[in-house]
Amino acid sequence: KPDLLLPVDDPKVWAGPLLFIRNITYPSGSIFAFTVQEDEKNTMTDELNELFEPIKNEDILVTSTTIDDTNFQHGAKLVIQTLSCSTFRPNILFLTVGSNKDNDKVLNKLVVDATKSRLGVIILRQHSRKAFGMQRGINLWLRDKSPNWHLAMLITLQLQINWHGIINLVTASPEKSDEKRLYNFLEKLGDRARLPSMTEFHVRIGPFKEAVLQAPPADINIFGIGHDTISFDFIREISELTKSSCLFVRDSGEESALV
Amino acid sequence: KPDLLLPVDDPKVWAGPLLFIRNITYPSGSIFAFTVQEDEKNTMTDELNELFEPIKNEDILVTSTTIDDTNFQHGAKLVIQTLSCSTFRPNILFLTVGSNKDNDKVLNKLVVDATKSRLGVIILRQHSRKAFGMQRGINLWLRDKSPNWHLAMLITLQLQINWHGIINLVTASPEKSDEKRLYNFLEKLGDRARLPSMTEFHVRIGPFKEAVLQAPPADINIFGIGHDTISFDFIREISELTKSSCLFVRDSGEESALV
Repeated sequence: KPDLLLPVDDPKVWAGPLLFIRNITYPSGSIFAFTVQEDEKNTMTDELNELFEPIKNEDILVTSTTIDDTNFQHGAKLVIQTLSCSTFRPNILFLTVGSNKDNDKVLNKLVVDATKSRLGVIILRQHSRKAFGMQRGINLWLRDKSPNWHLAMLITLQLQINWHGIINLVTASPEKSDEKRLYNFLEKLGDRARLPSMTEFHVRIGPFKEAVLQAPPADINIFGIGHDTISFDFIREISELTKSSCLFVRDSGEESALV
Repeated sequence: KPDLLLPVDDPKVWAGPLLFIRNITYPSGSIFAFTVQEDEKNTMTDELNELFEPIKNEDILVTSTTIDDTNFQHGAKLVIQTLSCSTFRPNILFLTVGSNKDNDKVLNKLVVDATKSRLGVIILRQHSRKAFGMQRGINLWLRDKSPNWHLAMLITLQLQINWHGIINLVTASPEKSDEKRLYNFLEKLGDRARLPSMTEFHVRIGPFKEAVLQAPPADINIFGIGHDTISFDFIREISELTKSSCLFVRDSGEESALV
């Protein structure tokens, strides 16, 4: 079950995707939100609590705290280190990527800290106009031989349930000769993860970015990512290409989407 | 139930009172141990885990983590802030006072951070030769009109059970005329907290330090402390005067020892 660790930059201006967060956690997940403040005389805990009031009303367990540190990334790292060994630890770091590139370095460090502490990572790039559209179509992009798909699959299923959505399993290959094998691969995976029978399978032939352009229309595109340094520029570009909000998901290594 | 937060200065040299910690947590308490390291390339988590192996074998839930911070007190503060809002949060910060005064300032800051985050505080001054003696006699010092006795009482009861110990309720007054009233006060409190029938009541007349000298012999002396800054010199002195290990206990305000 998805237990999110959610850094909040500034509770006074935060306008995070509350409904989306609800939809990937409901009904059995939880949220641990925190913010980091420089001036320890303030406390933003009340503001934080207020932010998540609408989710609390949906019976999702939300806890929140304010950390005193002059450096957001360092404070966040200590939260990750502290919680990662506690009994009811979060299992997913949830980050959002804005248009401003200034935070990219900090985000990358947080991803490294989370991975070290065996947390999965979800990075959301919300499309500024489309947001989550009709909250229905979900493209899950899979790569043959990539091991990083368990958490992406679990989040896809979670969204499918809460959106009453439709899943497209999508993969891409530059080689036309791969097409049949890849259809087989998708169908097998769909079976093993017990995806709903309405699920559709799509193989796109061509380079990755062209394949993305030809993707079936969807309200969100979900990609698994490996353990390399993340390029947030790439994330922004893919969201523009798909004209949709995109989710990039890294396994912690402890998930299994196999039934 | 006592859920201890236990800072460990250096796991490689730590020689904390493991059996005592066991005896104030067993059977339903828990321990969250952490250390702070400067060099993030190390990780002392394995050493920490090993330290507490003997307690784990007694079915007490032990979790431990290593935090990266160049400043022990700052790292510890963030652990307190992070955990204090989590679902299964520790409720007592457990500190030990050595002979060396260099750490007194840091300890006092940790006490302030813990109190802000609504944790109770236990400060142990272990007598260098006596340690915990025969693990039997427990003096619990109470002050008329002091509200800070709930956690001290709960820890006393916990020790009494695990030591099969005998409790002395002790109080002191400079005024001989107070004697009868204070016996009444002790007996009433003993009743309300349902202390074992073997419990003895002692009123000592004289200034506090003289009263301490005349205390009934015991293997530990337990004192409630208020919300003023703590004098660790005073703590060391009292331990010398009683020739025993001493425990100084501050309520979080959320305990109740009344049945």
